Parts: sequence; C-alpha cells; structure tokens
Amino acid sequence: MHYEFAERMNHIQKSFIREILKVTVDPQVISFAGGLPNPTTFPVEEIQKAAQKVLSENGNNVLQYSTTEGYLPLREYIANRYMKKGIQVKPEEILITNGSQQGIDLLGKIFINRGDNILIERPGYLGAIQAFSIFEPEFHAVPLLEDGIDTDYLEEILEAYRCKLFYAVPNFQNPSGIAYTEQKRKRAADILKKHRTVFIEDDPYGELRFMGEDAPSMRTYLDEHAVLLGSFSKIIAPGMRIGWICAKKDIMDKLIVAKQASDLHTNYFSQRVVYRYLVDNDIDFHIEKIRKLYKEQRDCMVHMIEKYFPKEIKYTKPQGGMFLWVTLPEGFSSLKLFDIAIKDNVAFVPGDPFYVNEYDTNTLRLNYSNSNESTIEEGIKRLSKAIHQLIGQ
Amino acid sequence: MHYEFAERMNHIQKSFIREILKVTVDPQVISFAGGLPNPTTFPVEEIQKAAQKVLSENGNNVLQYSTTEGYLPLREYIANRYMKKGIQVKPEEILITNGSQQGIDLLGKIFINRGDNILIERPGYLGAIQAFSIFEPEFHAVPLLEDGIDTDYLEEILEAYRCKLFYAVPNFQNPSGIAYTEQKRKRAADILKKHRTVFIEDDPYGELRFMGEDAPSMRTYLDEHAVLLGSFSKIIAPGMRIGWICAKKDIMDKLIVAKQASDLHTNYFSQRVVYRYLVDNDIDFHIEKIRKLYKEQRDCMVHMIEKYFPKEIKYTKPQGGMFLWVTLPEGFSSLKLFDIAIKDNVAFVPGDPFYVNEYDTNTLRLNYSNSNESTIEEGIKRLSKAIHQLIGQ
Repeated sequence: MHYEFAERMNHIQKSFIREILKVTVDPQVISFAGGLPNPTTFPVEEIQKAAQKVLSENGNNVLQYSTTEGYLPLREYIANRYMKKGIQVKPEEILITNGSQQGIDLLGKIFINRGDNILIERPGYLGAIQAFSIFEPEFHAVPLLEDGIDTDYLEEILEAYRCKLFYAVPNFQNPSGIAYTEQKRKRAADILKKHRTVFIEDDPYGELRFMGEDAPSMRTYLDEHAVLLGSFSKIIAPGMRIGWICAKKDIMDKLIVAKQASDLHTNYFSQRVVYRYLVDNDIDFHIEKIRKLYKEQRDCMVHMIEKYFPKEIKYTKPQGGMFLWVTLPEGFSSLKLFDIAIKDNVAFVPGDPFYVNEYDTNTLRLNYSNSNESTIEEGIKRLSKAIHQLIGQ
Repeated sequence: MHYEFAERMNHIQKSFIREILKVTVDPQVISFAGGLPNPTTFPVEEIQKAAQKVLSENGNNVLQYSTTEGYLPLREYIANRYMKKGIQVKPEEILITNGSQQGIDLLGKIFINRGDNILIERPGYLGAIQAFSIFEPEFHAVPLLEDGIDTDYLEEILEAYRCKLFYAVPNFQNPSGIAYTEQKRKRAADILKKHRTVFIEDDPYGELRFMGEDAPSMRTYLDEHAVLLGSFSKIIAPGMRIGWICAKKDIMDKLIVAKQASDLHTNYFSQRVVYRYLVDNDIDFHIEKIRKLYKEQRDCMVHMIEKYFPKEIKYTKPQGGMFLWVTLPEGFSSLKLFDIAIKDNVAFVPGDPFYVNEYDTNTLRLNYSNSNESTIEEGIKRLSKAIHQLIGQ
C-alpha cells in the first residue's frame, strides 16, 4: 500500500547520525561520533537506593498516572536551584519533559507556523534542527564566533526578518563547545528584546564547566523573552529522560496543553527516583567529579590534537561540556575525511547535519566525554593520519 | 510580552478533564471521573525486584542513552505476544513510545496535513481528539452502536470524503466500554480496505476482557491498512509510560524520524525494568487478577445503577475495560448534572469532550476500575439523587 504522509515529513531527512552510529557499533572502531556522557559517572548504586525507597514507601502511587506538569517537589527543587544561581523562577514555571529534546519539540509545536522565520546558531544543534523542521519554519543561521554568536549579524537579520524564536546553546554548545561571554550575552539580549524574539536557551551542559568563569543565564537579561531548557541527562543519567522547560505562565499554559496531547505526562517513576536521588545525595559533589573527569579527557584530546594534527587544522578549546569542533582548511570535505577515517576505524560526526542548507562542509565534531585517555590518543593518531591523507601532506 | 503562538494551538481548548480532576482532589468527593487503573493491582514488589536486577547487572548501560526504536528484547517480547494471538508481527514493526498517547501524537505528526479528513468514533477517546486536533484535521465522527461502529455510516462517509485515517478503540472503548463484534470488524475492514483508509487500532484495554469471547484484532483483517497501538499502562502500571506502535515498515521509517525528533527515545531504564518484570513473572496470571477485580467492580456498578437509577436512563454493560457510558433522556444536559452532582460530592466526566463539535450533550462516562464496591454503591446513590433532581422525578 502507498501511504500518504503529511507534507511536514518531506522536510526531514533520515538521520545522518543514526547511519553513522551504526558503523561505530563495531568494537574495532574508536568513536568520537556519539554524544554520550561517560557511563562510569552514572550514580548506579544511589539510583538503586532511590528506586527502592520510592517503591517501598509509596509504590502504588509512583506507578500511577500523574499530573502533566510533573512531580511538584522536583519542580520546586529545580526552581530553587535556579534561585541559588540568581535566576528568579517559580515552580509553576517548570514543566518536566522527556529530556530537553521534548522541550524543543513542544516549543516548536506551540510557536511555529509553516514559513515562520526562526534563528539558530551556525553550526547548530542538529536535534533542534530536526525537531523544528517538522513544523516547517524558515531557518536563518547566526554564525558562532569564538566568544558567542555574531551579534552584528543577529542585528542585521532581525532588521530584515521578523523572527519569532532563536534557539541556542550558550554554554559549551553542541557541536562547537563554544560558550558565550558575558558581554556577548548582554549585547545579544539587548537586540533580542528590541525585536521581541523569544530566546530558547538550551542548557544541558551549563553545569559542566571545568575551566573559566560562569556567565549569567540569558534569562537573567531577557526575563519573559527567554525560555530555558534543562536536563538531568548530563549530570545524573540520560536513560531516564528527565528534562524540563522553564517558561513564563502564558507560554506554560500552551506547553501544558501540548504536553498532555503528546504523552499525558513524563515517566512518573523516574521523576520520583530522580527527586529521591537529588534529596539523598550531594549533586554538587557528584557534578564536581564529572567536571574533573571531562577536563582530563578534554585536556588529553586538545593535547593530542596539538601533537598530531597538521598545523592548518583549526579547533575549539572548550571550557566545559562534551564536544570539540574541528575546521579543516577551506575546500576540504569532512564527509570525504569520514570515508578515509572509518577505514582506519575512527569515527566522528561530519559537520553537515549541524547546518541549515549547507552541504559538504569542512567541519567535524569530536566527542571526548565517552573515551578514556589511551583511546583518545589512539583515535586522534588515526584521525590525524586520515587528515594528512585528505589534505595531502 | 504578547507571544505569537502557532495557529494550531487555537484549535485546542484547555482540557476540560483537567478542570474536573481538580475538583475531585477533595477527599470528600467520590470520583468516577478519572481513567485510572486500580493501584492495588500494581506489582510493586516485582517491579522493585526488576529495578534492582537491571541496575545491579548492567546499571551503566540501562542509565545511558539508547536507540530510538526501543529495547530490542522488549520489542521481540511484544511481537511474540502478538504472534501467540495470531497476529503476524515482526520486532522491527514495534516502536516503544511514552505510553500509547505518544503513539497517537506521532501518527498525527506523520500523517495529518491541515484540513485532511480523518475519522473517529462518536463518542471518541478525548486524548486522541486532543492530540490530532493539533495537526488541524477535519474530523468526521462515526456513531458507535452496541456492537461497534455504524458501518453503513462509515461507508457513506468514505464515499463522500477521502479519509486518510480512522482512529478507534475496538475493545472496551474509552469512553463507551463498547467492544466491536467479529462480524462488525469484518464488515468495517472490508469498507476501509476498499477506501485505502489507515485504521489506527488503539488497544489499551484488550487484555481486560472479563466476560464474553475475544474477537480478532482489526489488524488480522487489515494487515498493512492497520496500525496497532498498545500499552503496559493497564496491565502493569501507567506511571512508567511504556506503550508501543505496531506498524509496517514504510510507516515505521517515518515514525522513527518523528520519535527521534520528539524525544530521542523512550525512558530506557523503565523499558529494561518492564522487560525484566515480564520475563521473571507470569503476566497472564497477573492480568487474570486484574480482570477478576474489574469484573467485580463493573458488576457492582451495573447492579447499583439497576437498583438506583430512574428506568429511562440508558447505559452500556461492558464486557471488559474500565468504563461505562450513561445516556440521559433526550434534552437533558450532563454538564448540568455535573453541577448538581458535585454539590453532593460525586463526580464523572460529562460527555462533551468525547465529541467533535457537539456541546451540552446528554451523556457521561463513569469509571469503575478505581473505586471499591462500597464506594461504588455510595457514589451511584448520590449520582442517582442528582439525576432524579435533574430530570425531575
């Protein structure tokens, strides 16, 4: 039978990353392609205790249907944590989602009409490009510089187009690892406010700063012009898919309707387990351990790149997060590099899926959080060989 | 700030049920309004053991990101269970979702263009009306008779309109409790095939038959013209939000893209716990216990209605599931009845949200799965008083 699908599905390509990850299943392959946190950091025993506790104390309740908004004590915990960082948030402004990816989908659902102009960073998070694409917007990409987005470009594009949304990852961006400076944030906020563009501040990596100083959340400048997305995936564990949206009441009202229609509510058992874990353990101590580990892995990768890569290769030196972004000399294709590298059993994500309407780019993403130091050294050596082969030196 | 939301959000009303459920939080209120399984049936200790086991054996893995399709052994289990019932299904045809509600959302996403004609039962599942509404279809409602949908009407409407989808709950429908007879299924299947309409067979209650004989799944007649939705919410526990879509490859390819964009994948920890539970326990024995309990509760409610309600009140006598559907005499409003009844501390869901474009209807839904026998007796007595007051007898 020939099925008639919705037009919105024509805009989405089969995920490139899914195809790549298939190749990397081979244990011979050293993969810098995934976006996985290091599983050795998962607090397995503590989660086990938390699961026991919530089931023993109140099993019939934690296994029942629950409210669309999410478990109130968990929402209060999240709001309090924001308050401690100087971000004024009420528990009613928190909606618990299936990871922050669902937050992106729900925001697309409630905001985007076909043809609406929306902004994303260049390069941008591919999961956001995918999720928003389904609602058929016109994307405009704002280039990322070393200290954050190009605010002059932002201003120009906002003068030229009415843009409803700007989706961005100001802390240790996926894929680039770049963090916006405080100055950049202020400047961007001024421009966005003037043009009444809602800024979606996705912040899965903000807690994973291992060097330098934290900059204020964009929400502190933008208030009602900002929506925050958060997640426990990178600081506790991703398998439980617990994230959240933080938004003002008018947006929250629409989000709740959309969330209810999408799946009634987020897994309640896991919400209760995560909350129990947070109350019974010192999450900041735990995060400190993750930071320390990722710093070692990041330092190792940067060091090995310095040692082995040809000098004309550019790369970011992230102060946090899980990724590093490599730029080949102009005119060289990271897709071709992938084909060479995979023969030598090393994988990465070529840049293409992180761009809107750009193909055969000269960039690539490397993940360091899920490889130990000896694997990083061996992987970068292999990749370096492939790069030499590609650029002919 | 005034936000510009997407047009699709104009079609959705604030959930009526959410407002009703707020009223029923008062412990004085006897509520037949919810759609909750009986929490005394939840296998809390077994889930506890399963959670311990999966975390002890493979904690780092079960807490990590996983595949969009879902945990393969769980998909194989589901496919095997279908096979045992004579439904030919391959594991690749199963996608694990956050409850079957997400299945509805994803199917709306991949199939419905604005203005597409789609079919739903009259009355129909309100969660489906909500989820599909976001994609702005034209709904056509096919009346439910005692033995299933009105197939003559189905034929007429399909002659008049090209309808892409028909969403229905052939077993112990929500809200009516009606199950389609075998004959009705065959006739409906013949008509649907002829018109190439995809039938979405939502089956959360199929396992909960406590009287009469099972009829074959519509998929056995419709094959590639059918999509099945299933759920563990009513046979294990809803708080873990584990459901699935069963669909042919061409549909599955689109669903996987949509699922990935929506939330990457379903809670992996809970998938593993549910699978462990299924393997280590006798689910059929467990289901038998639920059936027995719900039969007692259903019998009690039917008996009390017979005893207390005025004779002109019509109601269904379900052979399974969790709901019973009451029809007041023509011209009497169940919304008015609700206002009277809630003063006497008894609640139900007025019929309106189960209809497309019909208001102030004379029908209402009663849930019996979440009340014990003495509560059912007292609640029906109160409701009866309210009905007498409304219809003036």
